[in-house]
Amino acid sequence: MTSPAKIRKDKEIVAEYETQVKEIRAQLVEQLKCLDQQCELRVQLLQDLQDFFRKKAEIEMDYSRNLEKLGERFLTKTRGTKDHLLKKEQVISSPLNCWNLMLLQVKRESRDHATLSDLYLNNIIPRFAQISEDSGRLFKKSKEVGVQLQEDLLKVLNELYTVMKTYHMYNTDSINAESKLKEAEKQMGRSSRQEDRQTPRSPDTLASIKSDEKVVRRSSVKKIEKMKEKRQAKYTENKLKAIKARNEYLLALEATNSCVFKYYIHDLSDIIDCCDLGYHASLHRALRTYLSAEQNVETSKHTGLETLEGAAEILEPNGDKQKLMETYNNIFCPPARFDFQSHMGDTMGVMCAQPPVEEDLLQRFQQLQSRLSTLTIENEEVKKTMGATLSTIQDMVTVEDYDVSECFHHSNSMESVKSTFSESYLSKPSLAKRRANQQETEQFYFTVSVSNFSQTSAEQEPPPDSKCSQKQSVPF
Amino acid sequence: MTSPAKIRKDKEIVAEYETQVKEIRAQLVEQLKCLDQQCELRVQLLQDLQDFFRKKAEIEMDYSRNLEKLGERFLTKTRGTKDHLLKKEQVISSPLNCWNLMLLQVKRESRDHATLSDLYLNNIIPRFAQISEDSGRLFKKSKEVGVQLQEDLLKVLNELYTVMKTYHMYNTDSINAESKLKEAEKQMGRSSRQEDRQTPRSPDTLASIKSDEKVVRRSSVKKIEKMKEKRQAKYTENKLKAIKARNEYLLALEATNSCVFKYYIHDLSDIIDCCDLGYHASLHRALRTYLSAEQNVETSKHTGLETLEGAAEILEPNGDKQKLMETYNNIFCPPARFDFQSHMGDTMGVMCAQPPVEEDLLQRFQQLQSRLSTLTIENEEVKKTMGATLSTIQDMVTVEDYDVSECFHHSNSMESVKSTFSESYLSKPSLAKRRANQQETEQFYFTVSVSNFSQTSAEQEPPPDSKCSQKQSVPF
Repeated sequence: MTSPAKIRKDKEIVAEYETQVKEIRAQLVEQLKCLDQQCELRVQLLQDLQDFFRKKAEIEMDYSRNLEKLGERFLTKTRGTKDHLLKKEQVISSPLNCWNLMLLQVKRESRDHATLSDLYLNNIIPRFAQISEDSGRLFKKSKEVGVQLQEDLLKVLNELYTVMKTYHMYNTDSINAESKLKEAEKQMGRSSRQEDRQTPRSPDTLASIKSDEKVVRRSSVKKIEKMKEKRQAKYTENKLKAIKARNEYLLALEATNSCVFKYYIHDLSDIIDCCDLGYHASLHRALRTYLSAEQNVETSKHTGLETLEGAAEILEPNGDKQKLMETYNNIFCPPARFDFQSHMGDTMGVMCAQPPVEEDLLQRFQQLQSRLSTLTIENEEVKKTMGATLSTIQDMVTVEDYDVSECFHHSNSMESVKSTFSESYLSKPSLAKRRANQQETEQFYFTVSVSNFSQTSAEQEPPPDSKCSQKQSVPF
Repeated sequence: MTSPAKIRKDKEIVAEYETQVKEIRAQLVEQLKCLDQQCELRVQLLQDLQDFFRKKAEIEMDYSRNLEKLGERFLTKTRGTKDHLLKKEQVISSPLNCWNLMLLQVKRESRDHATLSDLYLNNIIPRFAQISEDSGRLFKKSKEVGVQLQEDLLKVLNELYTVMKTYHMYNTDSINAESKLKEAEKQMGRSSRQEDRQTPRSPDTLASIKSDEKVVRRSSVKKIEKMKEKRQAKYTENKLKAIKARNEYLLALEATNSCVFKYYIHDLSDIIDCCDLGYHASLHRALRTYLSAEQNVETSKHTGLETLEGAAEILEPNGDKQKLMETYNNIFCPPARFDFQSHMGDTMGVMCAQPPVEEDLLQRFQQLQSRLSTLTIENEEVKKTMGATLSTIQDMVTVEDYDVSECFHHSNSMESVKSTFSESYLSKPSLAKRRANQQETEQFYFTVSVSNFSQTSAEQEPPPDSKCSQKQSVPF
């Protein structure tokens, strides 16, 4: 500032200032526009969220109703079946138990999605509506505050303008006064030099005339001196005014810069904070409500699936067979054993092995014993084969081919997901082979089983042998 | 058996046996009927399962399509908005980020339910179809085996019948032979007693006549003896036959009892095992496939919700404000500070505080300093009030009211569930009160804020004070 200043005139400086202020004004207008746009976007987002949840509530309700219908359709059927087939029998086999749990699971999911729909409509949407209302109100209030602050800022800029112009005016006055003073000083210098030159040229000749001229000249010098003094005073006064005006200008400059700084750095930020007051927190709560609802649906579903999984894990043929045979006890219960019926008072109810039948019985006993040992050996072989075949079948039917996780590995492209899961369970060539193999093994198992059935019953068919007598101790 | 037997005739015994066999036959018929019924129930269950999953696949596909549409509707809109509002600006505020994640979540759920539907149709239903086919085949084969075993059992029962009748026949013969033998013995006893009586009564008188009579009598005794011997032989033969027949009957009894035992205790159980061969295991796998699919949907949903939860947790106003101001840098950027513009080559760019302006400036400085300290005190008060109010608002807007778990506590009755969740978020009287309170606090906050804005700007408004000069070191 103390470097030699370029000489710039009022107009130039004022024009530059006006350009600066115009730019600031334009920014201020844009700032309000930006706030409006943000408000509009926010209201739009909240409207979208409400529309989204309204539509999703419909979808969830549809889904819930469809599941409800599905569940009811089969539950009614099951209840119907129970009535005329199972009620008196009470056979809930393990597969039937799973089926009932699946239907209950569908009902549970139906209920949960209805609850979800209800929560969307009666909790989440109202939250967004409130946030929207709050946001609108806050934006309006914040904008009012912003407008007020902008007006204040513009006032400050106007003040600076005025103060600057005052400085220019007083400085101009001061410069003018200075130049006038300088002119007076120049005049005074000129007249005093004139007097000095005339004095040595006329030594005491024509003294009276010269004395008259001298009086006239002296009054002129005095006049000039007086004028100079007046101009000096004027200059001093104007100079002081200019200094004061410059001081005011310098102070106004700092104040304006501070105001601009405060507005741009603090106030704008505060206005945006006011617009946002509670917005993120309320949105957070609304989203947490949504998440809580979804997580509850998830947990409930998980609980149901765990129950079903538990039931699937105890799918077991032996228990079911036991239950079936107990339920139909009257048709699976072995009849009373056949006892010896004495004929016409025959008192002999046991085998008679006295001679002469003794020899015959012994011979038959030996024949049957040798037949029995042959059969026992054969039977062991058959049992081994059956065991191995059954174990093969067991391995086949318990193969762990039920993990479908790979179908859910989301890639970014929808197409590749499609192609992953369109390779269905049935289309796998390995499966067809596996099934053919399984049926073949099953067929073999039956063939072996039947031969085993016949063989073992052949052992016990008439002609009866003494082995049967040996079996008498078997509990019936 | 060795106790004195009640005398029972053939007819009585045979009738009893026939009744017993008739009962067994009836049981055998019922057993096959029971197998048929079980087969029918199983096929029906598997048909129901297929129908269930076919219908559920439809429901899931509908749900998926609806979610897809919902997601697309808003994603298109968002993309549209982005194009003409946000693209060049790239403001993805934290709420907008949450919104985008919600839409992605809907798309993800849509995709998962489509996958679920696909798995139902192309994996789970075919499994049940196969199990049904397998079950039908196994029941058929098992029933064939059962029929064969029943025929064998009936053969054994017939054999017993035959053997029993043979025993009756030979026993009757033996009893007859015995009674004939006894009759002969009686006759022989009578004739020998007659001879003994006549011998002492006629001592050597009429000897020739008596001797003739004696010859006749002796030949008669011999005849009787011969007959007795013959009958003895006949009886012995029949007795042996009866013993053998009884032995056969006793052996057949044991064999039959063993066969019946084997059929009822082992064979029936084995037949049911054959019907069930692989059924439970295959059903288990089908259910596990279903569970795997559902669990994958669940896991995927969970992952998506976790992402959304993460985004909800970082909903934060300051970052968004920062981003907004950076994006709209041109309108939020503070203008260049106003510098001293030297007028007409004025070389003095700093405050002039020489006398005579010195005294004036000092006086103003002191006035402003006292005003400033008053304002500072007032400001502190306002700040405290604002801080407390803001903190109250923060507490209000961050109240943890988003746990909706209670809506998902399933009671057994559907009605009570309904009543639980129909008490909506809005209808709670506490909420209305809370909201009124919140708005009041917000209003108060704004009033205090505005007074603070004006106050602080009043401090810096012209007339400018020396405080501004003191602030010169603040970076702009």
